[in-house]
Amino acid sequence: MYRSLLLGLAGNSAAEALALRYGMRLGASRFVAGTTLGEALAAVKALNGKGIAVTLDHLGEGIRHLDEADGYMGAYLSLLQAMNREAVNGNVSLKPTQMGLALDPVSALDRIRAIVREAELHSLFVRLDMENSPYTTATIELVRQLHREGFSRVGTVIQAYLYRSAVDVKRLTVERINLRLVKGAYKESSSIAFAKRDDVDSNFKRLIKIRLDSGVYTGIATHDETIIDWTRSYAHRRSIPRSAYEFQMLYGIRTPLQESLAREGYTVRCYVPYGERWYPYFVRRLAERPANAAFVLRNMGRRE
Amino acid sequence: MYRSLLLGLAGNSAAEALALRYGMRLGASRFVAGTTLGEALAAVKALNGKGIAVTLDHLGEGIRHLDEADGYMGAYLSLLQAMNREAVNGNVSLKPTQMGLALDPVSALDRIRAIVREAELHSLFVRLDMENSPYTTATIELVRQLHREGFSRVGTVIQAYLYRSAVDVKRLTVERINLRLVKGAYKESSSIAFAKRDDVDSNFKRLIKIRLDSGVYTGIATHDETIIDWTRSYAHRRSIPRSAYEFQMLYGIRTPLQESLAREGYTVRCYVPYGERWYPYFVRRLAERPANAAFVLRNMGRRE
Repeated sequence: MYRSLLLGLAGNSAAEALALRYGMRLGASRFVAGTTLGEALAAVKALNGKGIAVTLDHLGEGIRHLDEADGYMGAYLSLLQAMNREAVNGNVSLKPTQMGLALDPVSALDRIRAIVREAELHSLFVRLDMENSPYTTATIELVRQLHREGFSRVGTVIQAYLYRSAVDVKRLTVERINLRLVKGAYKESSSIAFAKRDDVDSNFKRLIKIRLDSGVYTGIATHDETIIDWTRSYAHRRSIPRSAYEFQMLYGIRTPLQESLAREGYTVRCYVPYGERWYPYFVRRLAERPANAAFVLRNMGRRE
Repeated sequence: MYRSLLLGLAGNSAAEALALRYGMRLGASRFVAGTTLGEALAAVKALNGKGIAVTLDHLGEGIRHLDEADGYMGAYLSLLQAMNREAVNGNVSLKPTQMGLALDPVSALDRIRAIVREAELHSLFVRLDMENSPYTTATIELVRQLHREGFSRVGTVIQAYLYRSAVDVKRLTVERINLRLVKGAYKESSSIAFAKRDDVDSNFKRLIKIRLDSGVYTGIATHDETIIDWTRSYAHRRSIPRSAYEFQMLYGIRTPLQESLAREGYTVRCYVPYGERWYPYFVRRLAERPANAAFVLRNMGRRE
């Protein structure tokens, strides 16, 4: 109920307008690194200083016109150029629908290619975030197409909650495509996705095994310490080098765990979102865990 | 007086809001090919069909934030990608301040480089339009820098009304940089620019001579038939091939002349502006010639 209520708010434009006015003060700044590139880069420098890598996400989703996709493409190019100038230890993550996938797949591929090309120039990597299931196949095919064209610094994400994922992971591993593995965060039907937490967890471990055994570079994106510990001991037992995988977590979530893993010598990558359109991302974070919302409510009672 | 009044309107946001609502119907569509890329491409196809090449300008000027520059960079990349897909006979023109030159020259160079790189991939050419005199040196240096980096498909514009222009033309000709020559359309002080029409014209001819004699490719951008005729006969006398130069004119201005030159076998390039921010461009066109404003006034009296 709590989750549905909040996911409902994510699509509410009046709530968004209100939040945009007061939200950063009320606690959104815990989960969103700022509205501008400059603010995001300051947050990134602090993380890099602690030995934590980043992936930068210029927030934006649910676009209605291709002009918006052009704007986001420009924002990503500018981001990559700034990361190069400032020698950021990081890469970028983008949403294919943000580049027009839902409106015009042909021009979306062209936009994403331009970003991947700019990234290659600076030896930076581009992750295509995985959205909800209507875009799973199209997103995977975008990445495969770019690899066929000779681009290697681009990968995507596979969600453990989807039944299809083991098949996808196997094929993409044969093609040596860099993947992030996650449990999955969208609302999906039980006809295509595991509904039970235990089933998702055991599929997640299965996918992690396939990837770690293959040696193809993999990001394991979770805040679940059980999965993290399991991964560490699996990798240790199989003598899988730490250079073959990394842990990924979100900005503002389990920060002490991120720091301690980094101190232990694991590659830790923090997903750093920024931009004017931070509201839907923020609401999803609140929906995930009541503790996140409690943090915001505490902030509302605090004097400036 | 007429010109000052209209140039004043160019900076008036209330007038702009009013114009954006009614302007296309009232005649802006004579000088602006549309607000969207799709509309612009339709206009371009019609011109290409008549043997007229184009240079496409995604209108935008006077930006206040670098986010806007990112949006324009994205729009130009998307434009170049679409021109490639649709096999347009044309190139693009952009304003350096639109890419952030006045706000942050370092990132502006990065944005322009990304556009020039995309253009090179498709064998397309990028013209940096020349703005008013505070940006003359910076614009020339942007182009020289890109040429030093190995990009050849980028050039700029030299304005005959500036005293400095013969020096600039000579140096850029030695460096074999593609130039457009124009009389100049901004309001400049007589301390840096010729005030008399005759002086501008004779300097214009002087610059044209330097370029045609050099063989480095040159666009001669004018609606002045005296200059056009003079250029034709100069080129003929000196046996300068038509492949060494082209005539450029604006969309909607002297259209029959554009068509007849193209029929005669001259390369004619039509400058095709489009985009949401068409108002300042449109007002400058009205300011140039009372006849253009008369056209709009006639349209206002016409029934739909």
